[in-house]
Amino acid sequence: MASALLTDLYELTMVDAYLSEGLQDEAAFSLFVRRLPARRNYLVACGLEEALTYLETLRFSSEELAWLESLGRFSPRLLEWLEHFHFTGDVHAVPEGTPLFGEEPLLEVIAPLPEAQLVETYLINQVHLQTLAASKAARVVEAAQGRPVVDFGVRRMHGVDAGLKVARAAYVAGVSATSNLLAGQRYGIPVAGTMAHSYVQAHDDERSAFRAYARRFPETTLLVDTYDTLEGVRKVVELSRELGPEFQVRAVRLDSGDLVSLAHSARRLLDAAGLEHVHIFASGGLDEDEVARLLEHHAPIDAFGVGTAMGVSTDAPALDMAYKLVEYAGHGRLKLSPGKVLLPGRKQVFRQEADGMAPRDVLARHEEALPGRPLLRRVMRAGRRLEDASPSLAAIRAHAREERERLPPAVRRLEPVRPPYRVDVSPALNAAKEQVSSWLREAAHAP
Amino acid sequence: MASALLTDLYELTMVDAYLSEGLQDEAAFSLFVRRLPARRNYLVACGLEEALTYLETLRFSSEELAWLESLGRFSPRLLEWLEHFHFTGDVHAVPEGTPLFGEEPLLEVIAPLPEAQLVETYLINQVHLQTLAASKAARVVEAAQGRPVVDFGVRRMHGVDAGLKVARAAYVAGVSATSNLLAGQRYGIPVAGTMAHSYVQAHDDERSAFRAYARRFPETTLLVDTYDTLEGVRKVVELSRELGPEFQVRAVRLDSGDLVSLAHSARRLLDAAGLEHVHIFASGGLDEDEVARLLEHHAPIDAFGVGTAMGVSTDAPALDMAYKLVEYAGHGRLKLSPGKVLLPGRKQVFRQEADGMAPRDVLARHEEALPGRPLLRRVMRAGRRLEDASPSLAAIRAHAREERERLPPAVRRLEPVRPPYRVDVSPALNAAKEQVSSWLREAAHAP
Repeated sequence: MASALLTDLYELTMVDAYLSEGLQDEAAFSLFVRRLPARRNYLVACGLEEALTYLETLRFSSEELAWLESLGRFSPRLLEWLEHFHFTGDVHAVPEGTPLFGEEPLLEVIAPLPEAQLVETYLINQVHLQTLAASKAARVVEAAQGRPVVDFGVRRMHGVDAGLKVARAAYVAGVSATSNLLAGQRYGIPVAGTMAHSYVQAHDDERSAFRAYARRFPETTLLVDTYDTLEGVRKVVELSRELGPEFQVRAVRLDSGDLVSLAHSARRLLDAAGLEHVHIFASGGLDEDEVARLLEHHAPIDAFGVGTAMGVSTDAPALDMAYKLVEYAGHGRLKLSPGKVLLPGRKQVFRQEADGMAPRDVLARHEEALPGRPLLRRVMRAGRRLEDASPSLAAIRAHAREERERLPPAVRRLEPVRPPYRVDVSPALNAAKEQVSSWLREAAHAP
Repeated sequence: MASALLTDLYELTMVDAYLSEGLQDEAAFSLFVRRLPARRNYLVACGLEEALTYLETLRFSSEELAWLESLGRFSPRLLEWLEHFHFTGDVHAVPEGTPLFGEEPLLEVIAPLPEAQLVETYLINQVHLQTLAASKAARVVEAAQGRPVVDFGVRRMHGVDAGLKVARAAYVAGVSATSNLLAGQRYGIPVAGTMAHSYVQAHDDERSAFRAYARRFPETTLLVDTYDTLEGVRKVVELSRELGPEFQVRAVRLDSGDLVSLAHSARRLLDAAGLEHVHIFASGGLDEDEVARLLEHHAPIDAFGVGTAMGVSTDAPALDMAYKLVEYAGHGRLKLSPGKVLLPGRKQVFRQEADGMAPRDVLARHEEALPGRPLLRRVMRAGRRLEDASPSLAAIRAHAREERERLPPAVRRLEPVRPPYRVDVSPALNAAKEQVSSWLREAAHAP
């Protein structure tokens, strides 16, 4: 999917200037989320696999170079540099699936300044999307309390790439299956689906629609709310009588109306007919709050189909993610823009655990050795991915579950946790910040 | 970009069932938004070009067919049908760029039922994204009152495809340029960009950064807020003195802080130095409300860079868009799910104008001839796009502007308009709805 041109114009103009100025020393850029959205107690790091693939494969085609040249903005030096470009830097990163907090780096790129600058836009674009999606999906999975959640969101996700990557991120976060066939093919995620209203509508009556679908797909889920939900359930019961032992329908799907009351009534109708084994599947504009509300009201729902709210992260459709220069030519760098002050230098995050639970992180300088588990590790050296840097999707998903289980219970809840999960800045990092700040303030006001 | 597998599993299981039941009569599906988000007074229809390209080119590759077969869910009949699939239906649609309202079809697909069903997911995915993005961008453009708006959003748009398509939709809606090179290359949208904080940070001081960038790109925009905005502006002034007639910097960019006060102060500093021609460009977390607020406070800002809020449509990141069966085998179809009642049959929208303004629409049956301008027209016949169905992007953008100018001023404002733009349902369409409803209610309760 990745084209080398999926980038901001200014990345190329800056690289052009760096080259003409000879600014090619080693730079470190840090990719992190400044502040978490109000309704996120933690993030789930995701998208590293795509980031590494991009860094390994990014090349400019002759067609792309010709188009860039046609803009008349770039120097021959830049165009030649792009023609021979391949990424030669290192990457340190937190494994996908790891819960993370504000200011903590998801990844750090260490490379000659022009290379590290060039890759900014795409790295943010991909890591942002998957981290956004995994962080949202983790909430839905949490709300479902162990019941399967199926991703139904592809139709309203933002385009083809989001359709794929959000499905992957949701699976990492614990979603059980997706309706999206392309995600199934590309990533091996289990695919699942039921039927749409159009199928029922296309038949002269609901009964014949159910009969026909169950004939073709015996272990299917029947959508019962096209006309009247409980009448629909009654037709499923009638079908079970008609088919006898051949009736193997697994579930009914409720997609509208008062799902608490309808689920209770549907359960009673099914049980009264001896269909205790027929599950109730709920969908229709669900998000984590609605899933939690349904279960608080003891709605007898066995699984959830969640679409748009999870697919676009409706309540927080973007993260305040940045990719910032923190070190150049051996010196820590920062900026002082109001509300956007940076911590300088490369970093490490130490997760300090006790009794298997993680009550706090310490954000430290890269070279510090503090108590706790370091979360960032090297995943790429000199442009090549390290051997253990690409776990299977199943392993990433298991890691996400294990790591999530170590978070304090209040952090995993849907409501904002107060005080938030504790992230301390190490004394050494604080000192570095003060040092670079005062140096910069002096420089800024120097005559 | 489009893969035939970018679809929901149930589209294929339903097609499989349709084929096995011989349900291959003509169906009409309508793509529309049920209700507008609270903060949208109108939509801007967008995405038709991609929809038509998809319908013309959709094929299943042998690799995709093999994967589908490997799932063990589908009949040989389905797989064979998919192998030979190409779309043979008709499409009626509203031209891209047209303002539209709730329940009004963006497009209608008329095709044999399995074909019309199969294409649902991708059509929604693409038309949803672009209509969402154009509708949001139109608000930002409106707020800017004729000042250029540059799309800076690609890094936080949801993936590669969104990066492309949102840039296109924003351009349709009146945005002037994009930072996204790929969108520039693919669609010919003007590209624009400035510099990032990292560029300034990589230099030992801001002054040398500005000097170097202006040397390489004389007509550039200098980002002045890395350390202290007004000190940054002063350095631009100093650079102008240093360079004399060679100083051709076009603008300074403010990216943080109190933009009203900073813009006023920056303007004063620049004017006092005889740099009246140096523009002020503002960015940094802007949305339409903030743009409007800045201009209400008479901030002397000449152009805006708008990123995330426009790129993901933060306040309404999804539309309640549906693709619904409205007719099958010559009969109107609907559903009665609570809150989701459909109007049956194919439709036409008549925009009734007086004195060049459009005060109301009438939503009617397809075959009605009512006063007003019909918005839907045939764009595809028997799977082939009609000759005039693909205007240039420039023509679409001009059309969007003309049509927007015909809307009542209150509808174009940012605040929710009360009462909303008037959309009446024609008596004939209402009668059809009553007729189909009562037929369905009877059928639903029939023994």
